[in-house]
Amino acid sequence: MRLSQMLFVTLRDDPAEAEIPSHKLLVRGGYIRRVASGIYAYLPLMWRVLQNASQIVREEMNRSGAMECLLPQLQPAELWQESGRWDTYTQAEGIMFALGDRQERQLGLGPTHEEVITTIAKELIRSYRQLPLHLYQIQTKFRDEIRPRFGLMRGREFIMKDGYSFHRDQESLKETYAVMYETYSRILVRCGLTFRAVEADSGAIGGSGSHEFMVLADAGEDEVLYTEDGQYAANAEKAISQPPPAVPSTTKKSATVETPDATTIADLVACLNCDPSQIIKNVLYRAIYDNGTIVLVLVSIRGDQEINTVKLHNELSRLAPDYGAEKVLALTVADANATDWAAKPIPLGSIGPDLADDYIALNAAISPAFLRLADQTVVDLKHFITGANQAGYHRVGLSWGKACAKPKRVVDIRLAQGGDRACHDPEQTLRSARGIEIGHIFQLGTKYSQALGATYTSEAGEEHPLVMGCYGIGVSRLAQAAVEQNHDKNGIIWPLGIAPYKVIIVIPNLNDESQVAIAHQLYEQLWAAGIDTLLDDRDERAGVKFKDADLIGIPYRIVTGRSLGEGKVEVVERSTGRSQLIPVADVTGEIKSWVSATLDIAHPAYPLELPR
Amino acid sequence: MRLSQMLFVTLRDDPAEAEIPSHKLLVRGGYIRRVASGIYAYLPLMWRVLQNASQIVREEMNRSGAMECLLPQLQPAELWQESGRWDTYTQAEGIMFALGDRQERQLGLGPTHEEVITTIAKELIRSYRQLPLHLYQIQTKFRDEIRPRFGLMRGREFIMKDGYSFHRDQESLKETYAVMYETYSRILVRCGLTFRAVEADSGAIGGSGSHEFMVLADAGEDEVLYTEDGQYAANAEKAISQPPPAVPSTTKKSATVETPDATTIADLVACLNCDPSQIIKNVLYRAIYDNGTIVLVLVSIRGDQEINTVKLHNELSRLAPDYGAEKVLALTVADANATDWAAKPIPLGSIGPDLADDYIALNAAISPAFLRLADQTVVDLKHFITGANQAGYHRVGLSWGKACAKPKRVVDIRLAQGGDRACHDPEQTLRSARGIEIGHIFQLGTKYSQALGATYTSEAGEEHPLVMGCYGIGVSRLAQAAVEQNHDKNGIIWPLGIAPYKVIIVIPNLNDESQVAIAHQLYEQLWAAGIDTLLDDRDERAGVKFKDADLIGIPYRIVTGRSLGEGKVEVVERSTGRSQLIPVADVTGEIKSWVSATLDIAHPAYPLELPR
Repeated sequence: MRLSQMLFVTLRDDPAEAEIPSHKLLVRGGYIRRVASGIYAYLPLMWRVLQNASQIVREEMNRSGAMECLLPQLQPAELWQESGRWDTYTQAEGIMFALGDRQERQLGLGPTHEEVITTIAKELIRSYRQLPLHLYQIQTKFRDEIRPRFGLMRGREFIMKDGYSFHRDQESLKETYAVMYETYSRILVRCGLTFRAVEADSGAIGGSGSHEFMVLADAGEDEVLYTEDGQYAANAEKAISQPPPAVPSTTKKSATVETPDATTIADLVACLNCDPSQIIKNVLYRAIYDNGTIVLVLVSIRGDQEINTVKLHNELSRLAPDYGAEKVLALTVADANATDWAAKPIPLGSIGPDLADDYIALNAAISPAFLRLADQTVVDLKHFITGANQAGYHRVGLSWGKACAKPKRVVDIRLAQGGDRACHDPEQTLRSARGIEIGHIFQLGTKYSQALGATYTSEAGEEHPLVMGCYGIGVSRLAQAAVEQNHDKNGIIWPLGIAPYKVIIVIPNLNDESQVAIAHQLYEQLWAAGIDTLLDDRDERAGVKFKDADLIGIPYRIVTGRSLGEGKVEVVERSTGRSQLIPVADVTGEIKSWVSATLDIAHPAYPLELPR
Repeated sequence: MRLSQMLFVTLRDDPAEAEIPSHKLLVRGGYIRRVASGIYAYLPLMWRVLQNASQIVREEMNRSGAMECLLPQLQPAELWQESGRWDTYTQAEGIMFALGDRQERQLGLGPTHEEVITTIAKELIRSYRQLPLHLYQIQTKFRDEIRPRFGLMRGREFIMKDGYSFHRDQESLKETYAVMYETYSRILVRCGLTFRAVEADSGAIGGSGSHEFMVLADAGEDEVLYTEDGQYAANAEKAISQPPPAVPSTTKKSATVETPDATTIADLVACLNCDPSQIIKNVLYRAIYDNGTIVLVLVSIRGDQEINTVKLHNELSRLAPDYGAEKVLALTVADANATDWAAKPIPLGSIGPDLADDYIALNAAISPAFLRLADQTVVDLKHFITGANQAGYHRVGLSWGKACAKPKRVVDIRLAQGGDRACHDPEQTLRSARGIEIGHIFQLGTKYSQALGATYTSEAGEEHPLVMGCYGIGVSRLAQAAVEQNHDKNGIIWPLGIAPYKVIIVIPNLNDESQVAIAHQLYEQLWAAGIDTLLDDRDERAGVKFKDADLIGIPYRIVTGRSLGEGKVEVVERSTGRSQLIPVADVTGEIKSWVSATLDIAHPAYPLELPR
């Protein structure tokens, strides 16, 4: 394409709306244009990047045996009511756009497609002989984000690949899951991205196991914890680790001591001159279940550790049936201002694991007893320090027993952190990195097939619910993550696999006929060799053209400048800045061999070692 | 793809929801699945057809110099309010789905993108040097149809290619318009469809000229009128023609005669023993403009002719400024039940062109005088018959003059019909055919650029509104129209260019090892030759497989049956039913040559030239 014929407008200044480098660069480079909050137009350059990424996704999904289809974006409310997600998605979390049509039927704009695909599976799958089966689509999805930001990273309209597999049993699901793990890894390698596959929380989607694929970049919203031996990597939300050993207590004798104004662990450490690992911290939460029941949750954890609220939320979800409920609607810390449930003033800052249940007001909607959860870190503590259930007092030298009963429920709700020892090998220390989640694979199990009645007939003639997996990649997010990971002060540095064009030919001086002629000749040669090439034939200063070429991040820049005198052109590699003079006759061949070398490593027989 | 590994489910019976053959066949063949009214899932076979059609569209659009992009589906209400279409699209016609987000901002789901693209053009186009420019996208669009029907033909969610071009002047627009006419023609030829490009009404989109591309099929919702010399073709809504000459009247003497119960033209012909072409028929309409003004419209037309309400609507739109309005909101025949505007009983059935204005009640919202429109057919009539403005009476032998004033506004609002003489050559007779509109190209002009303030600076340094064109193809509709045009009692007959697979290999007997081996060998050879092939390796009876192959409409069927004994396979062409035995070693080469022959006729200039 000739730049003089394109809609090509670059900006010098960072757009006010952008916070992170990739967002700024995509707007400045003329890749995207904001139309409304979280809603962007993909201009021609961006669309080429998205098409390249989509094509890699498509080729790898097809290679895995999955089949492409396209499901509707408008989805009838009834399907989501059947699965039980309509209220959560349109009301509680509210991330699904909902609308009424002219017949006043409710519709949702698909953020995901479990309901639709399961309904189709229910209608079309009869027999085990049709299994396994895997359908996917590449499609624009919608989420009414509370706070749309970071350009395409957290947009309200975005492009996803989502796939759904159907199986007769868990074993077949696990086979496809492993294939998807490989497939996703290959996709990211071909897109030229540095990434990590990590154990992940399954969240609202449900299911028994999942992995996220994280593109590593400083601006990533997620924290990844991993070990250098490559044996362990997990989202910090999900990660496990061994805490450092507790410092043994020297105060063996039990006593209640005055601790005025000591309401934080740091205060208490200063006041009692102890180590935080000798303290048991007790935090009160207020959970609301979907049947309206309010439960006061008293969590005990070692003073030097933090609570992982995702793990806590999952634990409370598991306990929902104990309260006649199905899920947790809200979970908040019960601070001093939120004591609508208290029968008398709570000694906040001095609570012990044994805070008496009569602090809870009698009320039919409120569970009358604290749900007491002890993190594993407190189980083996002796002679510990904890609140005396009396404002301004703590107990020291306390041990579990009559004086203070140990909570019956022992769980892991501790936040793992960089520096912790790994569970699989205490010699390994967890390292921390920032990541952008661009893929997520789930072993869903029968959650949706049971809710929607999607079954198959086994060889023995019995009806069973279909076992399902689901697998998503954020295609537009991937494209921006590529920029977040690959840029410098001058602009974008596209990985070759998804670059909108592989080469840009810059004519420094349009008045020089030989420059123009050679540029056009190379332009035609490169296209004929199958290499997508831009020709900067604009009537602009050479400096402007070089700056623009750097900004938009085309991997190779050919300059038909002074070196033409010796029959050579300058070729500059965007990623390294390396410049070389190459005879005009050799340029196309050289570039073709570089492109093939990079892309061939990435795909044909894939002998490359996949990161785990 | 092997059928045993696919989601492949065909139905024997026609689905209850389907009215036309293409809809029935697409559901029965497992191509589409209804998810809600007017909302369909495209299953893998259908998705391949849509991808093939999209790819042809993309290649031809790129060849024309247009650039692909992707615009958002969610569109802020403000843009549509600026263009003045929000109320019409969400309220009056109500075809745009509207919704509120969590910030209670109004959004529409894009049925078209003039507003969005014009806003982007406004932001990015500054100078005449950037023009002309043409951007297009292939995207799912939404319309809340009053009566969704015919499967993908009139769905609520469908795939469109829409493109928008920007120009400095009308001349440049006309050049691109001509290129688009060629491009659309090439697209349809490559898709293997019989079609006609016809002059069309510009409708709600606006602009000065437009053509529709009609795929000819009996179930088409549109009527096309054309001449056999190829010089004229138009949508019946827009068509012009010469009416047959009027039969001269023999009653030269003016008189008022009793015509009891003669309220129709047929009644009057019987009653007065005249020719309908001797009568002037007068029809009363009630128009409501967008400022609330009601106008009574009295249309006079020759008795043997019909009124074209699209032309009438256009005429009333042109006259809107006379009533201080911008557009017509509603237009209905003012029948006996709708006389809320009448000051006294109207002599319906006996109205003359000169019905007095005092029949109209005094009311600020109602224009006090009839808007009298005379069709060209009545202008030169003499000694005609028309209503006497008195129930049960008509005037005969009347001529324009003092006795009956000729309306000042003479217009063409006559419906052209098959059998009429063509305007360009009275020797040519208009023929009628049914068509499915799958493309529409418009010379928009400055309607949107003026409304949204999208201008460019000319060479002289002056600001001018951008001159625009827009061009749409219904991709999913095209795919179904292909079936409507190409099917028989056994199923679909896909044109080669868009067929989901070009070849299906059927193994009649899975227990015959040589059948299986040859089938797999050919399957691999054909894929290696670049020919998308299905392999029916299901454990089913041969008859079932043949029926399914016919139903899903794959162009070539290879059968590895008894003829293997002589080293041959049977090859059956779906479209003609022609069967031949071909040596196994020659099959791939033969089929490759047939495929190339067909597709090369369709795009002769390939390999593609460089993008301009």
